[in-house]
Amino acid sequence: MAPIKIMAEKAAAAARSLALAETETKNSLLAALADSLRQNAAAVLAANRADVAAAEAGGLTKHMADRLSLNEARVEELARAVNQVADLPDPVGEISDEQTLSSGLLVRRLRIPLGLIAFICEARPGALVEAGALTIKTGNGLIVKCGKEMALTAAALNDVFNAAFQSLNLDPAAVTVLPTLDRDDLKEMLTLSETIDLVIPRGGEGLIRFVSENSRIPVLKHFKGVCHLYVDQGADQDQALELLINGKTQRPSTCNSLEALLVHQDEAAAFLPRAGAELVARGVTLKADPGAAKFLPRSEAAGEDDWGREFLDLTLAVKVVPNFEAALKHIADYGSNHTEVIATRDPDRANRFLRAVEAGCVMVNASSRLNDGGCLGLGAEIGISTTRLHAYGPMGLRELTTTRFIVTGQGHLRN
Amino acid sequence: MAPIKIMAEKAAAAARSLALAETETKNSLLAALADSLRQNAAAVLAANRADVAAAEAGGLTKHMADRLSLNEARVEELARAVNQVADLPDPVGEISDEQTLSSGLLVRRLRIPLGLIAFICEARPGALVEAGALTIKTGNGLIVKCGKEMALTAAALNDVFNAAFQSLNLDPAAVTVLPTLDRDDLKEMLTLSETIDLVIPRGGEGLIRFVSENSRIPVLKHFKGVCHLYVDQGADQDQALELLINGKTQRPSTCNSLEALLVHQDEAAAFLPRAGAELVARGVTLKADPGAAKFLPRSEAAGEDDWGREFLDLTLAVKVVPNFEAALKHIADYGSNHTEVIATRDPDRANRFLRAVEAGCVMVNASSRLNDGGCLGLGAEIGISTTRLHAYGPMGLRELTTTRFIVTGQGHLRN
Repeated sequence: MAPIKIMAEKAAAAARSLALAETETKNSLLAALADSLRQNAAAVLAANRADVAAAEAGGLTKHMADRLSLNEARVEELARAVNQVADLPDPVGEISDEQTLSSGLLVRRLRIPLGLIAFICEARPGALVEAGALTIKTGNGLIVKCGKEMALTAAALNDVFNAAFQSLNLDPAAVTVLPTLDRDDLKEMLTLSETIDLVIPRGGEGLIRFVSENSRIPVLKHFKGVCHLYVDQGADQDQALELLINGKTQRPSTCNSLEALLVHQDEAAAFLPRAGAELVARGVTLKADPGAAKFLPRSEAAGEDDWGREFLDLTLAVKVVPNFEAALKHIADYGSNHTEVIATRDPDRANRFLRAVEAGCVMVNASSRLNDGGCLGLGAEIGISTTRLHAYGPMGLRELTTTRFIVTGQGHLRN
Repeated sequence: MAPIKIMAEKAAAAARSLALAETETKNSLLAALADSLRQNAAAVLAANRADVAAAEAGGLTKHMADRLSLNEARVEELARAVNQVADLPDPVGEISDEQTLSSGLLVRRLRIPLGLIAFICEARPGALVEAGALTIKTGNGLIVKCGKEMALTAAALNDVFNAAFQSLNLDPAAVTVLPTLDRDDLKEMLTLSETIDLVIPRGGEGLIRFVSENSRIPVLKHFKGVCHLYVDQGADQDQALELLINGKTQRPSTCNSLEALLVHQDEAAAFLPRAGAELVARGVTLKADPGAAKFLPRSEAAGEDDWGREFLDLTLAVKVVPNFEAALKHIADYGSNHTEVIATRDPDRANRFLRAVEAGCVMVNASSRLNDGGCLGLGAEIGISTTRLHAYGPMGLRELTTTRFIVTGQGHLRN
């Protein structure tokens, strides 16, 4: 038996115990985790500095260095996030869909953890801590595979988790941070469908594609966020402009930022010159189709591969569409099932947009940047799913659970 | 582009239209399907007779022949089942989890279809009709791959579906029954993760394993049903005996039949001799551990491979356990996450059993045979899932849908 399989089986066994833990026990564990993080901040930060130095020597992109780097404020922020997860309601143990059939048979559903979750992250120590907190709260086990860029940080965080479990005499294998794995080990882990119930990859499109193609375990993924804002005929242009600026420039490297603007032809002459000036003033490069270019003197011509493209920086594709249907069609052709927004004053088209557009989160008159578990009232999130199975859109605590049928009879038989 | 890919893309496009159909339209389509089935019964039965004859010449097992064969009564039963699906509530379009955040942002979830479902069945024409009805009701598309044993029946049923769609001027590609596929075509279909959203295999363990191992599309499966009845200390023995006889003998070839009996040692001397006599009188072969064999003179010795085995016929493994914990342990070691039953009068142990036993359906004082969408109030089922992702236990209409976030603001931004 390979080490990875043994570690996964230990984690699964620990998860079975955590699955039956009372809410108070899990909350105490989260409090201990937050304390452990604060107490061990110096060790975590030292490890992280070493990782960052090694990564910079190896030529890390600025984007990745941002995600990898921790500092005191960020560690305190993570500790507070762990405390906040403790304050959220525990979905495990909820009873729903209670039905007493005419025969007297009582049929209910009991909410239970998913089991053991494999979390695969590249250089995201914050995501690791958050994932650990969410899985503890939901009574799941977590086995984490990190990128080699954060090997030392991951080991330090493993100590942080261990200390929290040990302070309550609980089995620390329930959160197992693996040593850095090569792709062969990762492939082996992805075959352990008897032991691991779900895989959540967080990272670049290449990683997610590798995991999806090699996994025999269900994968919850988002490949990319190609988010559109459609400015409808008769939209409030001032409001639409704010949605556009916020969606494009507030944090352009994130998956819920805007990549493309679609404007109804009747709004183009008034809206686009203003929008273009505001965006260019903020450093945004505009790639326009011929219909939009007329109103955007400082734009480049958009190429076919600019539609459906995730720029992840201050670039925006812009297109003028003849009508609402053409906007729906463009989003159907180029959207990524992540976040889609309409700016409109027409309630019928707002409802049609909400119903017909295929995405995990569809918004009317709200910024795409609000598609986030925290912003949408879930309390926290472990990721944003762009596939429809099990969870679609931001995944909070409830999405880390499932239900089983529990049935109570008085000797009920089948005839 | 291979034909299978083209057919799947046509089915997906038709599914996108059906996804937006009103409930009345879908119900009219189901009524037309039931009519079409009745009107074309003679053609379906003729095709089915030819399939059965060919299969018998090729040496079909009795079990498979049972599943493959249709007759007039069975076709009428299927037509009635289609009518009943029309009468069930439509989950699509339901709004849930409505929350107005303190900022005034309105966050809701809208229930939507899953998309295009690939249904892979061996020799089960009834399952094909039921799957078609359930996917129509939920606005999903269905692409069906049947075993070669039912090639002619499948073609006749494809005509039945086509006629129903055409009578309402709807795109018949939404239910596409494929010509018989070889394993290479099937493998290719299982790579179409951009087009197909879910795979549901119905058939033997070999088929389900093949699909699971080759699919890049999420698979909802049950491998097998190894269902236990545990007779607890102090259980009502008369009631437990009825649960045992019903669970084992009512239809032993099904996945929710009992395969093993666990008896608390304090009940063994009184319960097992009666149970053994009743079961042997009904033709059941008993395979007993040494503790049970003392009370079962007409039993064989159970081998290690009889625990966790799906006999699918009139055979039962029997074991005496020292206590409740040992019963839980045995089920954890040998259960298949399908259906588990306790016969008890103790409410604490009943609750612990419901909470701690890992299965999609856990029952107290009710027959394992009742784990069925119809018997549990779902109206109908497309299968029983033994994996925890997305759906666990019997899958009815709701389990063929998912939710997306729909968010309505008044220019809400992220700060």
